Amino acid sequence: MERDGADGDPAMMREAIALSIASVAEGGGPFGCVVVRNGVIVGRGANRVTRDNDPTAHAEVVAIRDACARLGSHQLEGCDIYASCEPCPMCLAASYWARPARVFYASTAADAAAVGFDDAFIDAELGRRPAALRAIPLRQMLREEALAAYAAWTAKLDRTHY
Amino acid sequence: MERDGADGDPAMMREAIALSIASVAEGGGPFGCVVVRNGVIVGRGANRVTRDNDPTAHAEVVAIRDACARLGSHQLEGCDIYASCEPCPMCLAASYWARPARVFYASTAADAAAVGFDDAFIDAELGRRPAALRAIPLRQMLREEALAAYAAWTAKLDRTHY
Repeated sequence: MERDGADGDPAMMREAIALSIASVAEGGGPFGCVVVRNGVIVGRGANRVTRDNDPTAHAEVVAIRDACARLGSHQLEGCDIYASCEPCPMCLAASYWARPARVFYASTAADAAAVGFDDAFIDAELGRRPAALRAIPLRQMLREEALAAYAAWTAKLDRTHY
Repeated sequence: MERDGADGDPAMMREAIALSIASVAEGGGPFGCVVVRNGVIVGRGANRVTRDNDPTAHAEVVAIRDACARLGSHQLEGCDIYASCEPCPMCLAASYWARPARVFYASTAADAAAVGFDDAFIDAELGRRPAALRAIPLRQMLREEALAAYAAWTAKLDRTHY
């Protein structure tokens, strides 16, 4: 971690905010993110959903992918994530998979919703049971056939766990 | 949508399962996914987390990105997602952002956990309050400064909403 305190480094958050402002001029959404290790920025991202035709290209996901590529690791051990906005459920879960030390954010989900970026429906939907009744129905099929992949996985001696 | 019934197309799920099995031999995780529109596969993905050093490269995210790139859209309108395994919180939220018609899966989260891929901790963590007490602490800072990006966004006349 880049500092001892529980509080984040304002200079690093300002870098994330600068990316969020620059992103608007570049045709992206108003969101920025940096990944920091030992006081150094090791990854940067801005929202590129419409620029790249990629619904997963939120600032945090872009920054996590950038940092992991630079660090040559699929984990962000000892890193902090600075996001200009409170992470949506996708980005928060992505952060958990990346396993940084801490996540800092500046504006709130309510602030983003006020300008048209509302992720509250995702939280509400993910909690709805049964899942088949969600706005995007979620249904199971062919479970037995799918287990073959796990059999192949457990039989593989050189597998990399994560 | 590729068919009228509420049930998915077994042939398409078998494509996702085939990708999950092939992935293991290729050094990836045992997960596969296809995106289908009008009975045609428009996107494919397998877990590439350790292969690509990308913690967000779950099969569903890879398939969504592939389909959106091919379709030239940041949305998957009228598409169905077939995942060999029940989507983790990141992939489920990514699916909501992509807005497909339906999501089908084969093996369960419990099946995946049995071979070492456990996402239950993410669900538990995301619900924990206050967020500063989570395993990965989540903290707010510099909200007022971050609002500048939203001011730039609302002032921009040619913005693309999504």
